[in-house]
Amino acid sequence: MSGRVFANCMLATMVDGGAPYGLVESGAVAVENGRIAWVGSAIDLPVAFKTWQLTDLGGALVTPALVDCHTHLVFGGDRSREFALRLGGASYEEIARAGGGIRSTVAATRAASDQDLLRSALRRVDDLLADGVAVIEVKSGYGLTIEHEMRMLRVARAIEQHRPVRILTTWLAAHALPPEYADAPDAYIDEVAIPGLRAAQAEGFVDAVDAFCETIGFTPAQVRRVFEAARDLGLPVKLHAEQLSDLKGAVLTAEFGGLSADHLEYLAISDVPRLAEKNVVAVLLPGAFFALRETQLPPIDALRTHGVAMAVATDSNPGSSPMSSLRLAMSMACTLFRLTPEEALAGATRHAARALGLGDEYGSIAPGKRAELAVWDAPHPDFLSYWIGGDLLRGRIAGGDLHER
Amino acid sequence: MSGRVFANCMLATMVDGGAPYGLVESGAVAVENGRIAWVGSAIDLPVAFKTWQLTDLGGALVTPALVDCHTHLVFGGDRSREFALRLGGASYEEIARAGGGIRSTVAATRAASDQDLLRSALRRVDDLLADGVAVIEVKSGYGLTIEHEMRMLRVARAIEQHRPVRILTTWLAAHALPPEYADAPDAYIDEVAIPGLRAAQAEGFVDAVDAFCETIGFTPAQVRRVFEAARDLGLPVKLHAEQLSDLKGAVLTAEFGGLSADHLEYLAISDVPRLAEKNVVAVLLPGAFFALRETQLPPIDALRTHGVAMAVATDSNPGSSPMSSLRLAMSMACTLFRLTPEEALAGATRHAARALGLGDEYGSIAPGKRAELAVWDAPHPDFLSYWIGGDLLRGRIAGGDLHER
Ligand SMILES: [Zn+2]
Ligand SMILES: [Zn+2]
Repeated sequence: MSGRVFANCMLATMVDGGAPYGLVESGAVAVENGRIAWVGSAIDLPVAFKTWQLTDLGGALVTPALVDCHTHLVFGGDRSREFALRLGGASYEEIARAGGGIRSTVAATRAASDQDLLRSALRRVDDLLADGVAVIEVKSGYGLTIEHEMRMLRVARAIEQHRPVRILTTWLAAHALPPEYADAPDAYIDEVAIPGLRAAQAEGFVDAVDAFCETIGFTPAQVRRVFEAARDLGLPVKLHAEQLSDLKGAVLTAEFGGLSADHLEYLAISDVPRLAEKNVVAVLLPGAFFALRETQLPPIDALRTHGVAMAVATDSNPGSSPMSSLRLAMSMACTLFRLTPEEALAGATRHAARALGLGDEYGSIAPGKRAELAVWDAPHPDFLSYWIGGDLLRGRIAGGDLHER
Repeated sequence: MSGRVFANCMLATMVDGGAPYGLVESGAVAVENGRIAWVGSAIDLPVAFKTWQLTDLGGALVTPALVDCHTHLVFGGDRSREFALRLGGASYEEIARAGGGIRSTVAATRAASDQDLLRSALRRVDDLLADGVAVIEVKSGYGLTIEHEMRMLRVARAIEQHRPVRILTTWLAAHALPPEYADAPDAYIDEVAIPGLRAAQAEGFVDAVDAFCETIGFTPAQVRRVFEAARDLGLPVKLHAEQLSDLKGAVLTAEFGGLSADHLEYLAISDVPRLAEKNVVAVLLPGAFFALRETQLPPIDALRTHGVAMAVATDSNPGSSPMSSLRLAMSMACTLFRLTPEEALAGATRHAARALGLGDEYGSIAPGKRAELAVWDAPHPDFLSYWIGGDLLRGRIAGGDLHER
């Protein structure tokens, strides 16, 4: 008698290939040592588990814990003033003069103490936890010096000491050019982005490497050099690709066998098969699409047709996606991108886990996976994307224990 | 020593005509018997209040409690299945055959017990309370018989016994045609909408009267008869007007001196002066605009130019606006309708209170008004509309007492 059984619940296992959502109406999950030992219909529960401690979930909906696979949630300052100025009709120049834009976040991030950065990040983490999230990817990219980029990832890792969540850190020094390298992007790549990556990796702070490939970011040639440095270190890559224009960043990511290509509003349909071939996950970020009032849609039908896994993430950041609700991102993915609610939930569980290289551990309710589950006050998994915002989480099963809210 | 003083806070008083937001950086509010006795800069606090009990708000932002002036949050069932079917490509007919549409909500509402209706409504009320809301308007309109419409308003009123919130009820029998009156709208108006209104008013359940004036709803001539019945009873009117087409419902509402005209995407610019003349509030419902993927924008510039008060509300309902966050509606009003954050907050406080005929009691922090305030963990009132979702409320001051979360 070493494990626990959770029963009287509707399970959206998110196991692929069977019923929609991998749904089990009257389900049971057996958990031992933080892993799932068995899952299925309660009536089929093997006799071996019947002596384990039983917890009745009162008919609740249970899904895998959610995974937010693309965030920038460690940052200093806020950009609400810039938001107001823009809506008040201020020009780009006026906003820049008022200290707006990403440079204002860089300045505020550099000026903030580690403790301030952590404290403000924890607020956004708490919002995500309230949405049933158990794994969060956090990128650097607002420090833009070796020391400040490393500090951002150190703070991100420290979140695990304060909250019951797993953090994966991504080196994104190639996010923007700091003022001290204005008009010298190649020098920035050589002197900061690549040596900083090596230093951060030497300290064990890096799970993956990302860049912002865009006319207002870095060129494919510059990104290629960052990716080559990542490959030399044995680190997986991913890319902010085709958000505002088609620079063939997704194809570059596929060439490097990357984990994911993210945004993709301007991805050419003819490039979709390359993502499929290399199993690159397409990470959709509808919060940024919404906040920027973008009208160009990612090629969802082509991604679907070619079987490219589509993840959904918050892109939580102070400029283009000031949000911290993954369920809201799922809802926006349905309404704005026409994903089905099942695709949206797969995007925030199974496919998001794969986008982080954690497909074997998270993202579905299956034997051997971690017993990280979300317990919802909802009549059906469709409801999670249908209701816009609101508080639906009843509790979390983490490390095999139930934590009610 | 009979009152209390709240100090060390940034006050967005929302008093019109002075600084943006009526902002007081280092403010104090004196409260007595549930009303505001004094408000201003802490250094100007009159000596008479200095003996009152002092509460330090730790630098928090304080606004008037929010007011949600347009909801349908009492209803049975849910429509998440229909949402999923629509996204999966089902036709309108297939959805109707699967029991979708407003008729499914009518059937589920009729079938639900009073207790079920109340319990499900309280969840949505709790979401609104978490957004600092203190006043909620609730409409009937899913019963569509005299008895079931009255029951909806009775349940709505009962919310006040369970939560610290003020409920205003609106008779909206002219919302849709029930199956038993299919193709007989005039008979429905004569036999249900008008006599039901009289019966509900006799029992004291009605604060205002509304209708859905639309090609798929009721004609202006039918609405006029409902409005005349309301006038005979001394009840104020409001209208779902110009949401999908221009039937001149807003002009009709102005003719009756109505409280508000709501939705207004198809309002003709030439009709805006009529709203201004009669002080009719324009209630904007960006959640429905978002969920329906509407592209026709309400004539915001014209409303602004003519000085029409613009309120912002959730339209919380199971079909066209499945949401229960007023801050999210404010954020959508900014991003989708280009309101400024200050206009959005005025829309959820001062103007929303006026849309309910409660302008003397709620909606700004001023002497004589009710001491119903929201205390926020935000650096500036711009932040309330800038950050999309998330949990920003630190506490509420209700009836003069501080309730921390
Ligand atoms: Zn990003
Ligand atoms: Zn409505």
